[in-house]
Amino acid sequence: MTHLTLALDTMGGDNGPHVTVPASLQALSIYADLNIILVGDRPTILAILAKHQVSESPRLQILHAEQVVQMDDKPIHALRRLKQSSMRLALDLVANGQADACVSAGNTGALMAMAKVVLKTLSGIDRPALVRALPSISGQPVYLLDLGANTSCDSQTLFQFAVMGSVLAEQVTGKTAPKVALLNIGSEEIKGNDQVQQAARLLQTTHDVNYMGYVEGDQIFSGQADVIVCDGFVGNTTLKASEGIARLLFHQISEAVQRNLIARLLAWLLKKRLKKLFLQMNPDHYNGASLLGLRHIVVKSHGNADAAAFLRAIEEAITEVHRRVPSKIEARLESVLLEKSC
Amino acid sequence: MTHLTLALDTMGGDNGPHVTVPASLQALSIYADLNIILVGDRPTILAILAKHQVSESPRLQILHAEQVVQMDDKPIHALRRLKQSSMRLALDLVANGQADACVSAGNTGALMAMAKVVLKTLSGIDRPALVRALPSISGQPVYLLDLGANTSCDSQTLFQFAVMGSVLAEQVTGKTAPKVALLNIGSEEIKGNDQVQQAARLLQTTHDVNYMGYVEGDQIFSGQADVIVCDGFVGNTTLKASEGIARLLFHQISEAVQRNLIARLLAWLLKKRLKKLFLQMNPDHYNGASLLGLRHIVVKSHGNADAAAFLRAIEEAITEVHRRVPSKIEARLESVLLEKSC
Repeated sequence: MTHLTLALDTMGGDNGPHVTVPASLQALSIYADLNIILVGDRPTILAILAKHQVSESPRLQILHAEQVVQMDDKPIHALRRLKQSSMRLALDLVANGQADACVSAGNTGALMAMAKVVLKTLSGIDRPALVRALPSISGQPVYLLDLGANTSCDSQTLFQFAVMGSVLAEQVTGKTAPKVALLNIGSEEIKGNDQVQQAARLLQTTHDVNYMGYVEGDQIFSGQADVIVCDGFVGNTTLKASEGIARLLFHQISEAVQRNLIARLLAWLLKKRLKKLFLQMNPDHYNGASLLGLRHIVVKSHGNADAAAFLRAIEEAITEVHRRVPSKIEARLESVLLEKSC
Repeated sequence: MTHLTLALDTMGGDNGPHVTVPASLQALSIYADLNIILVGDRPTILAILAKHQVSESPRLQILHAEQVVQMDDKPIHALRRLKQSSMRLALDLVANGQADACVSAGNTGALMAMAKVVLKTLSGIDRPALVRALPSISGQPVYLLDLGANTSCDSQTLFQFAVMGSVLAEQVTGKTAPKVALLNIGSEEIKGNDQVQQAARLLQTTHDVNYMGYVEGDQIFSGQADVIVCDGFVGNTTLKASEGIARLLFHQISEAVQRNLIARLLAWLLKKRLKKLFLQMNPDHYNGASLLGLRHIVVKSHGNADAAAFLRAIEEAITEVHRRVPSKIEARLESVLLEKSC
């Protein structure tokens, strides 16, 4: 098995190295073919490693970074002034071939801006998008993008997201002509804002995307569409609201169960199955959204991820490296966009 | 008890009178103080009434309408050309005092445009917003607006929604200084689009709204905020996605239960309790969003509501008439906006 190396922005996220370092140690113990470069404040990282009675090794290296991107740093500031930050240096490692992928729980806007400059977008793609596979009633994964990398998007950007999402679904699930939809507030043609309506017109005239029309929010999880496209503000709030309602439901079910003896018995008998279900629906279990459209792999973790959730983001990066997602997308994208420009 | 009269846009929604007429009959049998005016195509309505062996009566009148607003009619077309539509005539009945409130399952954009012209907005309010109370983990209702009446909103509109929402929560729940938040894709000041950031600045400088800052999608259902403000595109997709994930969860739980014999037995024993829980979380059970900011009461039902769900929208209108929501809001709003303009 060939080794793969991940560059981790150790300082990103609400709890920085206190979460990312333990998650890295877990990942190294699970994946024998994995090397990790922890990018961040060396003394802090060493102190945490010492607590775990671990020291640097060929599989676990430290790259010291003087600076940290804060959650409230503007992308343009991060790009110009924080060239020695852990986020930037982790991306640099990927750009110069020393790492196969980067994982960060830091500032999404800064990560997006830096990744675009350092790693470059695929030809024909102006802006990367955050994407994640979501569960659905049909049992098939649904790819939702953008999840927050682009606060607002013009119709051309939405069109490119549709093409990228389609190619991703095709390459990862093996499905031919995956069904692509635009998220809107109604199914009729006149519904929605100008950007969505214009993107619909662009998609109707392309042969390379199996465009099925608009879907509304309640159809995201039905599995009718394989790929659903929206701007980052809508995608982010929609996804997070879904996580919120899942928590509310589990809270209400737990309360109902607590109040009833038979229900408690049922819950006990179903424990294993319910636990699996909870895990499946737990947002942390799905942690790790890909920044799609770049020439290399960048995985974004929740800012408030714990070590288990950050481990999931690391695993997502490992999977994508094995699948060689960007090069597959690039190959397919070239022919799609070429046809479009003809 | 004083009688109250509702004007129903009988032709609105996916199934028109086949849903709205049976729902009206149910409402009349439940609420002894209720009168209903069915506005729509008289022959069609009479045929459905005949099937239920019911005829016109002082409590159940028909107002014939020549036209119907279609789901894909543009608001401006509906406003100018469909003055004899069931939607318009139902609103006219409220405007001229023959009905206390209007309920429609029709085209949201058209309803919003017509209601604004026919019923007028409260002074200081430019655009009405669709609002609904949502359940939360804290047990307190959370008012989310706008749910789709305004596809995009400038900062001033978002500010007005915050004021209206605050007054609504105060008047309906009796809470003093309800906590008001803006929905955003991050909690830091730099996050989000220009409209949201400017609305935040407006809210920070007013004393009349207990503004708590940004909340993200996953905090909607936590109950941290009493009122959450966003534009109609975001609110609509967010709410519908939450309904979608609720359906997915119930589907998965049902499947888990089906696969287990003991669980099936216990589920049968728990049927009543589970049914209650399902009902509580069923989006249809919450059907009926208010068009807030008008001088009169207009309730919007889901377009795809069945009779039970449309009955819920009728009940929402009855509750609002009893609570005299618009006049309470107007009284409070005047002092709030007056202070703001000083």
